[in-house]
Amino acid sequence: MGEVINGKEESQKYKDKIARFVSERKKKGLNIPCIASITVGDDGGSLYYVNNQKKVSESLGLKFKSIFLDESITEEELISTIEELNKDCTVHGIMLQLPLPNHIDAKLVTSKINANKDIDSLTDINTGKFYKGEKAFIPCTPRSIINLIKSLNIDICGKNAVVIGRSNIVGKPTAQLLLNENATVTICHSRTQNLKDICKKADIIVSAIGRPGFITSEFVSEKSVVIDVGTTVVDGKLRGDVVFDDVIKKAAYVTPVPGGVGAMTTTMLILNVCEALK
Amino acid sequence: MGEVINGKEESQKYKDKIARFVSERKKKGLNIPCIASITVGDDGGSLYYVNNQKKVSESLGLKFKSIFLDESITEEELISTIEELNKDCTVHGIMLQLPLPNHIDAKLVTSKINANKDIDSLTDINTGKFYKGEKAFIPCTPRSIINLIKSLNIDICGKNAVVIGRSNIVGKPTAQLLLNENATVTICHSRTQNLKDICKKADIIVSAIGRPGFITSEFVSEKSVVIDVGTTVVDGKLRGDVVFDDVIKKAAYVTPVPGGVGAMTTTMLILNVCEALK
Repeated sequence: MGEVINGKEESQKYKDKIARFVSERKKKGLNIPCIASITVGDDGGSLYYVNNQKKVSESLGLKFKSIFLDESITEEELISTIEELNKDCTVHGIMLQLPLPNHIDAKLVTSKINANKDIDSLTDINTGKFYKGEKAFIPCTPRSIINLIKSLNIDICGKNAVVIGRSNIVGKPTAQLLLNENATVTICHSRTQNLKDICKKADIIVSAIGRPGFITSEFVSEKSVVIDVGTTVVDGKLRGDVVFDDVIKKAAYVTPVPGGVGAMTTTMLILNVCEALK
Repeated sequence: MGEVINGKEESQKYKDKIARFVSERKKKGLNIPCIASITVGDDGGSLYYVNNQKKVSESLGLKFKSIFLDESITEEELISTIEELNKDCTVHGIMLQLPLPNHIDAKLVTSKINANKDIDSLTDINTGKFYKGEKAFIPCTPRSIINLIKSLNIDICGKNAVVIGRSNIVGKPTAQLLLNENATVTICHSRTQNLKDICKKADIIVSAIGRPGFITSEFVSEKSVVIDVGTTVVDGKLRGDVVFDDVIKKAAYVTPVPGGVGAMTTTMLILNVCEALK
């Protein structure tokens, strides 16, 4: 029987550190980290996330500026809003909630964010620095994944890690972070042959494919650390890629959904803005 | 007994295509692709490369501007040279020969190259777009590697590819290109355990570690495609990572050194500037 990797608990440890960091800055009379979030239109999903980010940020002592813009805003107006925030030295991190309305070129607008405030890792410059191994903001979900693995105090160096999925926001950057920790990394996807065999031999399995119940105990061994990044809503409930009850009987460690990776991401975002200030 | 992958022959095919492309543009009265190369100081290695790039470019009908700057040039002067070339619409590709003298911040200066003219893939913006799978210049050595593999007319999709080495200029981008072709990609390096076993099971092996004679027939199988990216000079002779005479007896295909990957790179650079013009 394996152990549950508790994302909420791990997230709380980072929250405690962040709250201490902010309160020490306050005591010293230093400026407080501030996130500016831009939402265009009233996409229900975006609103939910923004409100949650604001709530958590403020509970840790940070400042959080919510900017809501009408759906009819022009590209130029949105860019000028971003450029003002770039110049505003009281703002340390800029978040642009996606998706944007169709009449706005998301790539163009995103590219206008100052890379030094790009806490959500949207710009090409930040992505370039990240893959070159230079100082860069680390995308929040991959950062959550690597920190959950590190929390187990296993030595990642030389371990075989398998990442299933090759998306720009999860699979590829997670592979890069595992590589930074000196794991031998295999990137698998829909065209991979013998996925089950490849997973079985792995020490670390990260599944980010969005296929509920895909990873069963047949994919894992007794030594496996299994990180479930799937977040598919089925009948109103959030479901991961991993059949948790089945896999936990065999693997060494498994993240639940919810309460695993997802419980960490907002905290990692806030950690990014604190680091931007340092 | 395997087959030799002939880099010179493959390179010539691309050269023929480039020469036709340029001569057709000339006939139509269209502008001709032009590379501007900047060399600071008189590093012997850089001079050799620039002269070779110029010779090959001109032999294919392209224009090639060599700009030699004194080693004492200031950072500001170098940046202003780059900015002039950015604005010059008769220049389609800018190459900055590295290394630069110590008093110049190479990262800062590189970042000033217009990403649309960054044929040598030096900027963070180009790197970011490349890893996101967007339209970007592909670094020349990885592009040489993937094109040599493609020249064999094997189906890369679903094949197991192993890349040994994780450098920013070869290992990591080559893994990305193999992933783009739907291979299952494993990135190995100095900390990898059981490298021999991992390689033996692979359909494609790319070795870029710079350890002459490291890859023997024990690392390969009868189906292996072996790409040797090693270029170490030993007793005045260029040596690859692969023991060619040994490996070719067992593997399906092997690149020689010299005459393999290295024979392709300048041609890929010129292909990049032609594509910049399109």
